[in-house]
Amino acid sequence: MRVVTLSIGDELLDGRGVDTHGAWFSLELVRHGCDHVEHRVVADEVDTIRDAMSALLSRGDLLVMTGGLGPTPDDLTRDALASILEVELEEDSEARGPLESRLSKSGRPLGPGNLRQIMRPKGTSFLANENGTAPGIIARVSGASVVLLPGPPREMCAMFDRHVVPLLEGDPRERATIRSFGLSESEAGERLGDLARRDSEPVVCFKVSDSVVQADVLGAGAAGVARRIEELWSPYAFGDELDTLPGVVGALLHERSFDVAVSESCTGGLLGGALTGVSGSSDFFRGGFLTYSNALKSSLLGVPDALFETVGAVSREVALLMALETARRLGTTYALSTTGIAGPSGGTEDKPVGTVWIGLCDTSGPQPVVVARRFCFSGDREQVRDRTVKASLQMLRHRMLDIEVPLLWEIGS
Amino acid sequence: MRVVTLSIGDELLDGRGVDTHGAWFSLELVRHGCDHVEHRVVADEVDTIRDAMSALLSRGDLLVMTGGLGPTPDDLTRDALASILEVELEEDSEARGPLESRLSKSGRPLGPGNLRQIMRPKGTSFLANENGTAPGIIARVSGASVVLLPGPPREMCAMFDRHVVPLLEGDPRERATIRSFGLSESEAGERLGDLARRDSEPVVCFKVSDSVVQADVLGAGAAGVARRIEELWSPYAFGDELDTLPGVVGALLHERSFDVAVSESCTGGLLGGALTGVSGSSDFFRGGFLTYSNALKSSLLGVPDALFETVGAVSREVALLMALETARRLGTTYALSTTGIAGPSGGTEDKPVGTVWIGLCDTSGPQPVVVARRFCFSGDREQVRDRTVKASLQMLRHRMLDIEVPLLWEIGS
Repeated sequence: MRVVTLSIGDELLDGRGVDTHGAWFSLELVRHGCDHVEHRVVADEVDTIRDAMSALLSRGDLLVMTGGLGPTPDDLTRDALASILEVELEEDSEARGPLESRLSKSGRPLGPGNLRQIMRPKGTSFLANENGTAPGIIARVSGASVVLLPGPPREMCAMFDRHVVPLLEGDPRERATIRSFGLSESEAGERLGDLARRDSEPVVCFKVSDSVVQADVLGAGAAGVARRIEELWSPYAFGDELDTLPGVVGALLHERSFDVAVSESCTGGLLGGALTGVSGSSDFFRGGFLTYSNALKSSLLGVPDALFETVGAVSREVALLMALETARRLGTTYALSTTGIAGPSGGTEDKPVGTVWIGLCDTSGPQPVVVARRFCFSGDREQVRDRTVKASLQMLRHRMLDIEVPLLWEIGS
Repeated sequence: MRVVTLSIGDELLDGRGVDTHGAWFSLELVRHGCDHVEHRVVADEVDTIRDAMSALLSRGDLLVMTGGLGPTPDDLTRDALASILEVELEEDSEARGPLESRLSKSGRPLGPGNLRQIMRPKGTSFLANENGTAPGIIARVSGASVVLLPGPPREMCAMFDRHVVPLLEGDPRERATIRSFGLSESEAGERLGDLARRDSEPVVCFKVSDSVVQADVLGAGAAGVARRIEELWSPYAFGDELDTLPGVVGALLHERSFDVAVSESCTGGLLGGALTGVSGSSDFFRGGFLTYSNALKSSLLGVPDALFETVGAVSREVALLMALETARRLGTTYALSTTGIAGPSGGTEDKPVGTVWIGLCDTSGPQPVVVARRFCFSGDREQVRDRTVKASLQMLRHRMLDIEVPLLWEIGS
């Protein structure tokens, strides 16, 4: 099946936004065994959209379009479809009720912009959108199918799965993904050797996203190759496409009926935020302390003031005490602590920006064990904090699996 | 100047690679005051490339193409250019020497593939590539300029700066952005009225990203129109393109020498994480309590156990007590608290998923004032938590500015 795709939006062409849909469509279409023939990005203009639709329809059996279905006057995709079909827009009598009830849940009236969203070209049908106010539209144009989806990725992706995937006719190719943290991209590549040759089947592709190194395997035998990659990347590999580090750590805690608490300085809550991002986290996450100021490190966790003057707040001693006191005061199996210099200011020669101590207290044995490890993360403030969260979670995962290995960015203490 | 762009490569359409050039071109072109009219992605096929070139040339004064100039047989971009010009490929006599010396530096001989790379359509010219073996090509086709650049970003970007930027004719356009939170997209649009008409100059475009509604104004007089939008969106507008809610709240706290602490249940640390994302947040953020379990709400903040049985943890009473006790125990000017049902499970008829109470304690006056407001956020777990963080910050901003208005998703208590 030949599929063509079209992203619509001024902001995708004038530098304000980034069209991520083209690449996303490519992955989904190949997964379902379809041929992605062409992708275009055009502006919010009726004639331009209509011309692009005509040209693309001559090249494919299915045209998937995204963007320009919002409530504002610059959302013109439905007008372009009406123009190509040479019909008028009409209100869909069945769409008004659900939209009104959706809006009323959040106390909003139906405005004139929303009224535009329940208009569709005569003879076409709406596609339900469970994550937003703009329904999609499906139509037949000169022997091909056309599907219009809203632009926001969360809405678009869910609707693609529900409404477009059933239309796809192709032999799905086998796929598998392995995700890892704590290994550099180049070492991850070297560990794969010949597996990563581009002319082999299945194809193995790399991606690094938010410090997670991922291998996507595509083609016959993908699952077996993925298992081999998981071994080669052990113990840094933590799961497949659907896995996140907090999710994997949460599942391990839950299996063992263990729990965890945190005390956070440089991450300021992001570690707790990551753990509670897992649905059902009340099973294994209790809470903790945000001790961003030194005063709170003292008053909430009993870190002696003298330590700040001698070794400083970013030190093994403070990380150890934070983790130990958190586990002790809250009575959890594990406690994680973070203290570091996220930047951009605050670095010194001894403790440059990116220096972070992570503490881990383990009370699962007969005696509490507490360790602290030093990292020097590269990147900006956001990256340093995100990497701190992920390194903490990988440390806890390794602790539960009884694994001791250094992580990327870790430096001798 | 109207510019059209074209990325070429099978791997960009079959999920192996990601076309990043479209977004990169958009940014560069708007920066130089040019109009980026359309971007396309097509496969490595001579006829397909040639047809795309013809169509794009009818829409622009300059066509910039990238990809398909490598040494392998599937690199067909130069053949497509020859086809459209109706000329043969010929070897460029001056290109052989530099290529041979470049290859010999890395101990490689001139292979048959490389010989293809020194071929160009008769009557066209090569553009030097300092970072790779594939030279670019420049040609005139039916009154427009066509530039072919290699696909690897490192080579392409450097060659764009050197060879394409001097061709760009444009007046960099004035730009301004206004960002808001707490107003629905449709109400934001309605408040603008005629300002959002598409035929007016400057152009006003909307974007909603992570629940922040943003207007981008582009063209002569953008700054003035942006100020007008800020008034129309008052008091929900919080800043410009560079502003974030935590940043704006942090700046207000810093100006007044005030500080804030948090106690988080359903957000699990994300509110502290957002506030400490601001560089220099130690000026105004002290820390707080992650009281995800009811046991910690009692032991760390003194919330009476009886309340969990009578009104429940997600209640006005608990939100009020959490905020009050946090401010009292940590001695900060303000304290924010969150308690809610982020989902996907845990909802009831009275308290559906998305129900969140946000507490705010203000000790800046002679007596502490504490309020709690109820929301029913739409969206999944991640969105409910993100919206809780943003609503908390907008509540604190409004409190400091002495403004009382309801926010989107707020429901009568």
